[in-house]
Amino acid sequence: MTERIREFLRTRREDGPCLVVDLDVIRENYGKFARALPETRVFYAVKANPAPEVLKLLAELGSCFDTASVVEIELALAAGATPDRISFGNTIKKERDIARALELGVRLFAVDCEAEVEKIARASAQVSIPAAEVKVFCRILCDCVGAEWPLSRKFGCVPDMAVDVLEHAHRNGLEAYGVSFHVGSQQRNTESWDVALASASAIFRECAERGIHLSMVNLGGGFPTKYLKSVPAVEAYGEAIFQALSKHFGNRLPETIIEPGRGMVGNAGIIEAEVVLVSKKSRAEDEIRWVYLDIGKFGGLAETMDESIRYPIRTEHEGTPTVPCVLAGPTCDSADVLYEKEPYMLPVSLEIGDKVLIEGTGAYTTTYSAVAFNGFPPLKSYVI
Amino acid sequence: MTERIREFLRTRREDGPCLVVDLDVIRENYGKFARALPETRVFYAVKANPAPEVLKLLAELGSCFDTASVVEIELALAAGATPDRISFGNTIKKERDIARALELGVRLFAVDCEAEVEKIARASAQVSIPAAEVKVFCRILCDCVGAEWPLSRKFGCVPDMAVDVLEHAHRNGLEAYGVSFHVGSQQRNTESWDVALASASAIFRECAERGIHLSMVNLGGGFPTKYLKSVPAVEAYGEAIFQALSKHFGNRLPETIIEPGRGMVGNAGIIEAEVVLVSKKSRAEDEIRWVYLDIGKFGGLAETMDESIRYPIRTEHEGTPTVPCVLAGPTCDSADVLYEKEPYMLPVSLEIGDKVLIEGTGAYTTTYSAVAFNGFPPLKSYVI
Repeated sequence: MTERIREFLRTRREDGPCLVVDLDVIRENYGKFARALPETRVFYAVKANPAPEVLKLLAELGSCFDTASVVEIELALAAGATPDRISFGNTIKKERDIARALELGVRLFAVDCEAEVEKIARASAQVSIPAAEVKVFCRILCDCVGAEWPLSRKFGCVPDMAVDVLEHAHRNGLEAYGVSFHVGSQQRNTESWDVALASASAIFRECAERGIHLSMVNLGGGFPTKYLKSVPAVEAYGEAIFQALSKHFGNRLPETIIEPGRGMVGNAGIIEAEVVLVSKKSRAEDEIRWVYLDIGKFGGLAETMDESIRYPIRTEHEGTPTVPCVLAGPTCDSADVLYEKEPYMLPVSLEIGDKVLIEGTGAYTTTYSAVAFNGFPPLKSYVI
Repeated sequence: MTERIREFLRTRREDGPCLVVDLDVIRENYGKFARALPETRVFYAVKANPAPEVLKLLAELGSCFDTASVVEIELALAAGATPDRISFGNTIKKERDIARALELGVRLFAVDCEAEVEKIARASAQVSIPAAEVKVFCRILCDCVGAEWPLSRKFGCVPDMAVDVLEHAHRNGLEAYGVSFHVGSQQRNTESWDVALASASAIFRECAERGIHLSMVNLGGGFPTKYLKSVPAVEAYGEAIFQALSKHFGNRLPETIIEPGRGMVGNAGIIEAEVVLVSKKSRAEDEIRWVYLDIGKFGGLAETMDESIRYPIRTEHEGTPTVPCVLAGPTCDSADVLYEKEPYMLPVSLEIGDKVLIEGTGAYTTTYSAVAFNGFPPLKSYVI
């Protein structure tokens, strides 16, 4: 909680839950990343929070942008980023969206299979941009041990195949530019980059043997924000990554980029919500208490899915006795329960109408909101 | 697939996934419910699909409306429903929303605890509406065996407690009107209502002993739509429910209402989507194929959560050989995978750029869409 957010909420008059994001915190986070990995370019993962004020600040600070769609590319451009500072980092793209991105000036694309390489080659021909000016990097699968939200196998291919994919790009006239991976979201183990960098380095060598000289390793995201558990400082990630890079690439360090999203904006945001109901399901002595908020899984807290992210929740009853509670959202959807398998400790004195503050909610909240599920409006957002 | 939807899609020119809803199918469904349970009033669950055209048709056909929020109440009113045909069926309501509903003329409210009863009593005093004109029904917990999407314990209290809750309503001057339950979404067992009706009947008796005469049983929703597995006809539900009512209430049948949502609109809608990528993660012979669509969990198919709902998917390659595929959405979120634990059989010949039709998507799709996750727009919807 920052003083600026506290002051903003003190004077807010609107009804309903809202997210407040403090730009000062993002400025500080950007500085930490830039200092922790001074030779690495920062590509902010726009999907984490695409608020125009956030993108504008980061563009001014010198950040580059990792985008998932043409709309996100347009947002980054509107915020002042030049196209050479934008990566189209989604491995799943329509050919016409690739063409549109090329027209907008973007030249850096993620792939994880040959079909995607061919789309990029065709799209560049279609919009008359020389293939040699278009850089592609291949995402590899990565073991996500230590991540609070381990990724599925959705993105990336095995390292062996990546060499073929990059060779395919080369043969199609594109610049085979490098390798990317993602160690898993909210990664609390700073050593996780080591194994992936070993694979990346092997791909660099195998490509070199085929006459293809890669330039770049995209170290992905995964940098955590503090929820209930403590997390290592950004500096610790910087050191561990630099050591792993040196170990696997020796003196010939590749160009590197990182894609922080959660780590850049997560702790900059706080959601204010209201307790709508406190009740029990029976009169039994040991019956658990249910607390229902005016925000839930469909109003912006989608990352409570499988109870993976446990947000710190502050009330006006700090320091008073607590009881285990099931925490749920306001919709008529029985899946709209935030924490039940592992109940959440909340003050006994918490009452209907009380405000609660949900911390660490600057990332992956606003854009996840449902359009109008149960008639509830999407999460309001204020960037201050 | 109806001829009208086929024709609409044949001439559609816009890009991106869309839902098309055929009002003729909804008209037919309404008729089936009305005939299957002639003495029962139909309260359409607005949350299933709140499209104005859908609400208008149902209002014209004589349907009542089960709503989850003030916005849904306003939608039902705008569609032509009078307030006496609207129930505020969410057990989790802000007191000021209850007051607003009362001002709009709504007089029927769901509760599942005493605190919610007190909110209604206070709200009616606040807006100067005699408590005796306000009806409340108490939702009870119900064993959901047989449901494809069994409900959590989020809504309802144990039957014993319901008697106290209804007595509390009575003592607060409200009309203790009845009991509601929900046998679980996509309920394929027509006998599921029996156990819940036994509880309801016991609550009627216990209330009567306390001098409180209940009038109504809200039989809830749970009526299925056809996905991959076949489901019993609405008539079978009607018969089973009537038998269970007679068994537990004898000759003194209570007033009854049902709240179909999925069963009313599910099979009226079809989503057209596009194959964005088909790929594999390695060159291994037995490596599974991944098929990525331009719609996923965050674009309207939220009910694939835990792979609970398996939609029928049609392609232009019907009748050709199929292979197991992992089916995923287009976002950079690794959780945006529709079917993986149990892969989906799709034609070997399915290619990038192919259109696919996702059937049974008239319910719980449009309003579940994320506002702008990854920059992707919410699901477009056409009601024809």
